[in-house]
Amino acid sequence: MIKRVNIIDRRFPLEKGAGSDAVHRDPVYAYAVTQLADDSGLTGNGFAFTLGAGNELVCQAAKFYADKLIGKDIEELMRVFGKVSYQLANDPQFRWLGPQKGVVQLALASVTNACFDLWAKKRDVPLWKLLTDLSIDEVVSLLDLSYTEDEMSQEQARQLLQSQTIDKDERKKIVKQGYPGYDTSIGWFNYPDEQVKENCKKAVDAGFTAMKLKVGSADQERDIRRARLVREAAGEEAQIMLDVNQQWTLPQAIDICKRLQSINPYWIEEPTHPDDIWAHKKLADHIHPLKIALGEHVPNKIIFKNYLQAKCVDFIQADAVRVAGVSEFITISLLCKKYGVPVVPHVGDMGQLHQHLVLFNHIALGHEALFLEHIPHLRKYFLHPVQITDGRYKTPQEAGSSCDLKS
Amino acid sequence: MIKRVNIIDRRFPLEKGAGSDAVHRDPVYAYAVTQLADDSGLTGNGFAFTLGAGNELVCQAAKFYADKLIGKDIEELMRVFGKVSYQLANDPQFRWLGPQKGVVQLALASVTNACFDLWAKKRDVPLWKLLTDLSIDEVVSLLDLSYTEDEMSQEQARQLLQSQTIDKDERKKIVKQGYPGYDTSIGWFNYPDEQVKENCKKAVDAGFTAMKLKVGSADQERDIRRARLVREAAGEEAQIMLDVNQQWTLPQAIDICKRLQSINPYWIEEPTHPDDIWAHKKLADHIHPLKIALGEHVPNKIIFKNYLQAKCVDFIQADAVRVAGVSEFITISLLCKKYGVPVVPHVGDMGQLHQHLVLFNHIALGHEALFLEHIPHLRKYFLHPVQITDGRYKTPQEAGSSCDLKS
Repeated sequence: MIKRVNIIDRRFPLEKGAGSDAVHRDPVYAYAVTQLADDSGLTGNGFAFTLGAGNELVCQAAKFYADKLIGKDIEELMRVFGKVSYQLANDPQFRWLGPQKGVVQLALASVTNACFDLWAKKRDVPLWKLLTDLSIDEVVSLLDLSYTEDEMSQEQARQLLQSQTIDKDERKKIVKQGYPGYDTSIGWFNYPDEQVKENCKKAVDAGFTAMKLKVGSADQERDIRRARLVREAAGEEAQIMLDVNQQWTLPQAIDICKRLQSINPYWIEEPTHPDDIWAHKKLADHIHPLKIALGEHVPNKIIFKNYLQAKCVDFIQADAVRVAGVSEFITISLLCKKYGVPVVPHVGDMGQLHQHLVLFNHIALGHEALFLEHIPHLRKYFLHPVQITDGRYKTPQEAGSSCDLKS
Repeated sequence: MIKRVNIIDRRFPLEKGAGSDAVHRDPVYAYAVTQLADDSGLTGNGFAFTLGAGNELVCQAAKFYADKLIGKDIEELMRVFGKVSYQLANDPQFRWLGPQKGVVQLALASVTNACFDLWAKKRDVPLWKLLTDLSIDEVVSLLDLSYTEDEMSQEQARQLLQSQTIDKDERKKIVKQGYPGYDTSIGWFNYPDEQVKENCKKAVDAGFTAMKLKVGSADQERDIRRARLVREAAGEEAQIMLDVNQQWTLPQAIDICKRLQSINPYWIEEPTHPDDIWAHKKLADHIHPLKIALGEHVPNKIIFKNYLQAKCVDFIQADAVRVAGVSEFITISLLCKKYGVPVVPHVGDMGQLHQHLVLFNHIALGHEALFLEHIPHLRKYFLHPVQITDGRYKTPQEAGSSCDLKS
């Protein structure tokens, strides 16, 4: 039984230039952490990721949701978690602050993730193992499929999961092989050219074959120069992603994307405002076959559904610490599977949780094991930081979701 | 010069059944109020509207934004308010809580509206008069048109405003005539049938020719019965709007809308989730020529732009106390004018501010003077409550935006 709730506002100043992008030049990373203490002595830890002072508001909203779970048994909660999630998301006291977006949605992520962590700890297994061993009905019961009925009813979710059971054992090999990673820390926005070049070499030496550069400069030439520099340093075979962090207007995006095609980018990430589905549609038509990735600022399954229906995104970067937690992440992954679009979670510095979820997506949903973003800046704060060798994540073995922070 | 900021969390319990809808059965109306005190002794009052306990979070976020205005001169601020609004909306401490949605957007509404109120008081004119007398360049300087460049650049905004100057004087007649209202209080969700019937008759007697019924019952027959009852009580000529408050899934909406067509509704409001543009598009195709209205839960100009581009909404219910205030409301109204879609502001109980804005929309933008929602439940709390005679709003004459609350 959940006895006690503790909410912690953790902030992490970063080293010079790290984490910077076209829109956030001097970020402070922040977790709104929910701790659910069980009467068995276990504590479930979950968090949402934000930048800066606003984290405090997410913490307050998380407290509101988490307090409603006091006295509840975690197994009981998880048996009907889809309903629990629906009820929290539609609480009349908070619903007008969203619905399903902004502060209240982030708070729900934090609380939901603490539930999943506690559940896995209670069963004494890593989260990926718990999730991949669930029955089809147990998975579907975790999901709030409201407002996705037109694309993913409960019955359709069951059928999709069923259809992926055939090669499931084959895909479990990934657990031993380790999930591939890509390196985001080579080219933060404020890093000087020399540092970017050195970082590329280090990334290649460390076994990474994919890496990301921040673009979106006021000076187009700076973006072009740095993209070429990365291509040269990383080699022709490397997969290079260019991340705009929403900085361009649609006309700007159309213009510069045509020039950036010369370095053969693997994708263009968040080219413009994340609410602007129509702009992404127009852009996708203009820059084809150049591909688009987005998702870190798409707050819920409904907007992801719209992006999929508009057929203008090639990689969905859903983030379980930005949507309503693990449960909604799975719903979004089901929708993506239906549309044949890969899920490449935005990790921020949160590879901790997503390590588990990409294994579930691959094994249970049959998603391609593409690669998972890697940013090491916060690893020292975790009890079980991710381990990467030869560009691959080592599969976590500790019970839970690997989200315990050192105090 | 703005000397002092005061933020007030005001809650208003409602009388039995009032304000209830399919999703919010027992609402508490709430304003997050921003007061900006000037060294001349004037105080600008603005607010955002929410329901319930979450209002506290909006107040905290409003404090964060409003404190940045201390020491600023209101005329200086308003000369470049589009830039001010952009900077606040993109403040790196808060941007990851949105962007431009949820708590932070509501907070920006509150602060923005206080600025407009103070500005009008300083010039000693009602807000509608201030706005309609501005030059075209002055109007455009109020607007943050970022991410609308593909549909509404500064130059396009200027041209549109210019094109509407021709009959402007003719349209000023509305000031004397008064803007038409429609009555939302006839049919709250929890009102029993008898009360709905009586309210319809009272509305007709009071000069209203348009009124709204809350639908979205679990029992479809209840909705049908009540809709027929309103049609009978109000007469064949009355315009009857049916408000679902997001309750239906897309399949449900398609199903019941076909049945509701028999009472000839003027529009169906918020038939499903406000983020689901695609669902509204499919629904619009299915139920044509039945019309759709929405907007009270659409948080910003970008999503409104997407709805307009998708051509699936017939009435845009933008709300200046739910989007980023007066400034963004004008941007949305410009986009609507371009697309030929009427703006019928969601008023909640906030006719106070929107009385001014519909006059501006009609006189300066050439929008049709259709009608403005009217809900009287909070009128006793205002210093200058709206005055309605024969179903028409009397044009406010006091300086400011009529948003001063009794303490």
